[in-house]
Amino acid sequence: MTGRIRVFCASSLDGFIAGEGDDLSWLPDVPEGGSDHGYGAFMATVGALLMGRGTYDVVEAFGQWPYGEKPVLVATRRPLAPPAPSVRAVEGPIEALVAQAREAAAGADVYLDGGVLIRQALEAGLIDEAIVTLIPVVLGKGHPLFAGVAGRHPLTIAAHESLPGGLVQLTLRAP
Amino acid sequence: MTGRIRVFCASSLDGFIAGEGDDLSWLPDVPEGGSDHGYGAFMATVGALLMGRGTYDVVEAFGQWPYGEKPVLVATRRPLAPPAPSVRAVEGPIEALVAQAREAAAGADVYLDGGVLIRQALEAGLIDEAIVTLIPVVLGKGHPLFAGVAGRHPLTIAAHESLPGGLVQLTLRAP
Repeated sequence: MTGRIRVFCASSLDGFIAGEGDDLSWLPDVPEGGSDHGYGAFMATVGALLMGRGTYDVVEAFGQWPYGEKPVLVATRRPLAPPAPSVRAVEGPIEALVAQAREAAAGADVYLDGGVLIRQALEAGLIDEAIVTLIPVVLGKGHPLFAGVAGRHPLTIAAHESLPGGLVQLTLRAP
Repeated sequence: MTGRIRVFCASSLDGFIAGEGDDLSWLPDVPEGGSDHGYGAFMATVGALLMGRGTYDVVEAFGQWPYGEKPVLVATRRPLAPPAPSVRAVEGPIEALVAQAREAAAGADVYLDGGVLIRQALEAGLIDEAIVTLIPVVLGKGHPLFAGVAGRHPLTIAAHESLPGGLVQLTLRAP
């Protein structure tokens, strides 16, 4: 069994996953006991994560490592001081990184995170599904989710649903 | 009575309203007798159009002027050879352009079109509603709808609905 390569992220209305300087202050707070926007259900299918170094640095700076013992592969050429034994640095072309992540996921899904890796995977036709939560704000600039990718990539909008707080979650899939 | 300032456009999943070189080949064909994606209902509320010169040049090149006798104000500093007496060049700051368009609309809505003008109007807090039809394709580059705007602009997602052909139409409104 081979798991899917999936993205789960928030995006501004102009397609940014982070503002300038990795600003995430525009993301709505999730109230205690409130909706997690499907994150828990998504994570339950995830066997391993593959993320870019930029994303890793942001997550690691939160102070508490959020991924427990799930294998996390960080694409980086710079030294990494992993916060947990489950975290390791990887490098190479996107196809090799995704293959390693699939192996680590052992049949479950791979959670792919970070704009650069997401765009590389899209270019290589490796993304099975992207769950994108639209936050109703225009940021103007920041780190794009898809813009900048080489080539034109048709997807399907498999679902769109309202989430609490006026958000809309899109499920995009490879056609 | 003052009409609303409204946008009606298609956008790629990465937020472009046109591809490189004004490429619109990614827009789906509307089959004869098929859904017009709400365009007819939208246009029925429109008393005047305000568009940027780039948009005008693309529309004018279609060969048949699509806006009948509705007043069309084209923001441009270059000479314009209007295809109809209802078309005229205007220039000035966005507030003045919108005021002129409101006057021409005589209480009906203003259809604001073109990335540059849309972003200027968003910056000035002048957009009441934007109906954005998401086309399920990632273009990578092109002319952005919102990206590049100065400042952060919260909006509300007032509605999201499926359209034929796998499209999703978002209705964005000023909060």
